[in-house]
Amino acid sequence: MDKWVYLNNNFVLEKQAGLHVNDLAIQRGYGLFDYLKTINNSPIFMEDHLERFYFSAEQLRLPVPISKSQLEIIIHELISRNGIPDSGIKLTLTGGYSPDGYNITQPNLIIAQHPLQLPTQEAVENGIKLITYEHQRQLPQVKTIDYLMAIWLQPLIKEKGADDVLYFFNDVVCECPRANFFIVTKEDKLVTPAQNILKGITRKKILENAGSFGLAVEERDIKIAELKTAKTAFICSTTKAILPVMQIDDIVFDKSDKEIIQSLNKNLEFLIADYPKQIAATG
Amino acid sequence: MDKWVYLNNNFVLEKQAGLHVNDLAIQRGYGLFDYLKTINNSPIFMEDHLERFYFSAEQLRLPVPISKSQLEIIIHELISRNGIPDSGIKLTLTGGYSPDGYNITQPNLIIAQHPLQLPTQEAVENGIKLITYEHQRQLPQVKTIDYLMAIWLQPLIKEKGADDVLYFFNDVVCECPRANFFIVTKEDKLVTPAQNILKGITRKKILENAGSFGLAVEERDIKIAELKTAKTAFICSTTKAILPVMQIDDIVFDKSDKEIIQSLNKNLEFLIADYPKQIAATG
Repeated sequence: MDKWVYLNNNFVLEKQAGLHVNDLAIQRGYGLFDYLKTINNSPIFMEDHLERFYFSAEQLRLPVPISKSQLEIIIHELISRNGIPDSGIKLTLTGGYSPDGYNITQPNLIIAQHPLQLPTQEAVENGIKLITYEHQRQLPQVKTIDYLMAIWLQPLIKEKGADDVLYFFNDVVCECPRANFFIVTKEDKLVTPAQNILKGITRKKILENAGSFGLAVEERDIKIAELKTAKTAFICSTTKAILPVMQIDDIVFDKSDKEIIQSLNKNLEFLIADYPKQIAATG
Repeated sequence: MDKWVYLNNNFVLEKQAGLHVNDLAIQRGYGLFDYLKTINNSPIFMEDHLERFYFSAEQLRLPVPISKSQLEIIIHELISRNGIPDSGIKLTLTGGYSPDGYNITQPNLIIAQHPLQLPTQEAVENGIKLITYEHQRQLPQVKTIDYLMAIWLQPLIKEKGADDVLYFFNDVVCECPRANFFIVTKEDKLVTPAQNILKGITRKKILENAGSFGLAVEERDIKIAELKTAKTAFICSTTKAILPVMQIDDIVFDKSDKEIIQSLNKNLEFLIADYPKQIAATG
């Protein structure tokens, strides 16, 4: 069945959701998005995602045409129309129809919903393999639509038998294209890059909550050379939750050290299950 | 009057030329283009532009759905339908409608024609002002649609009273977002960056022809510090032709040194006027 998509001021069927070729996303790759998931028809951590969406828009100097509370109403309406209980909702804001193909005008807003693409059971249980690649995302703190390098690197990732790429720059680890990166040190400390990255919502939840079950966290630079001294590593994102990393280039982590990642995942699952109740209680 | 646009296999009116929101240009900023001009209904340096278009497509792993000779026929048909003798023709190839929003499928091809936006008489006569900014375009040799930084920098350019930005990286000058950069040394040598840039067609014509009127050329790194030792500088592109630079940040060039830039411009004008005759003679 065709899904509904919110496009500017209207709900349209997905097959009819188009943008004119003059849009600055098509002309100049200029746009941003955010992505949240719904579980059992509840949008998870919506507050955080919408806050970041407005932050990205402000950074890219694109005025969001509607308010946060209007956005929330539209998201709930989309959920109700489409009937996909566990889904991903993507809000995209583009540079709009530019008469000269260069200057920003009125942005276009697209809100689409798709079934969740979850990681495989194999990846969840045994972890994934990353390759490193030197690259620094431009405007890294903004969730832009710029995935040129990520998509361009897909053949290399497959050739190396890996699942994803871990960017580094000037010997310092950054992030995966669609996930944040953590190591667990030999002293059971969580360490994650502090700068030149997109600050993920799942990353934020981990940092906020790790202390509650006795884990120390550090936001700081991780040198590439430090990777081989780590006990283990993981990546995190809205879609992937917390996914163990079994290998980075030639560095293979000991699979037996699962406890911390399992605890973090349980805590995250609790936060996700609890979020709709918190919203119901406060909203 | 509404113009015709070629979209995949059809000529459509511009207002009807749209892409579905699932296209990878909108989802992931993944696409490329080329841009050539027509003078008096003749497409100028079309061979070079189409060659670069196929090169960009190969680099981005996007199969061009039609052959070079088919493209030429479509371009001539577009020129004949639209009746804009002096125009810019933009060929865009996007990542296509990706079912998972990440992997490349069948690209979308758009060919559009617009009136030429020429530089002002003021810019041609007195030159333009550039500000420098540290940035390295990703996949610099490919004419991707990635102008995120260029558009994001527009307010800064305006605030500084400048016309455009000159990128540098690790103290080495690269290019402007839509033009190549040259300096003329005190010894009347033309120098232009050799690497980490998009190799423009106008740049190529200058390099090929400068020797014929006694100018030495060098393709090599230009350090930022070298800018202040230059006699003068200019930028070049299909739209801008050869445009003198009067100022870069705080460095002001002597306006009296116009001779070389004028000779280069005259030569370029000759090549442009001569191109249709050459094509008629060989084709």
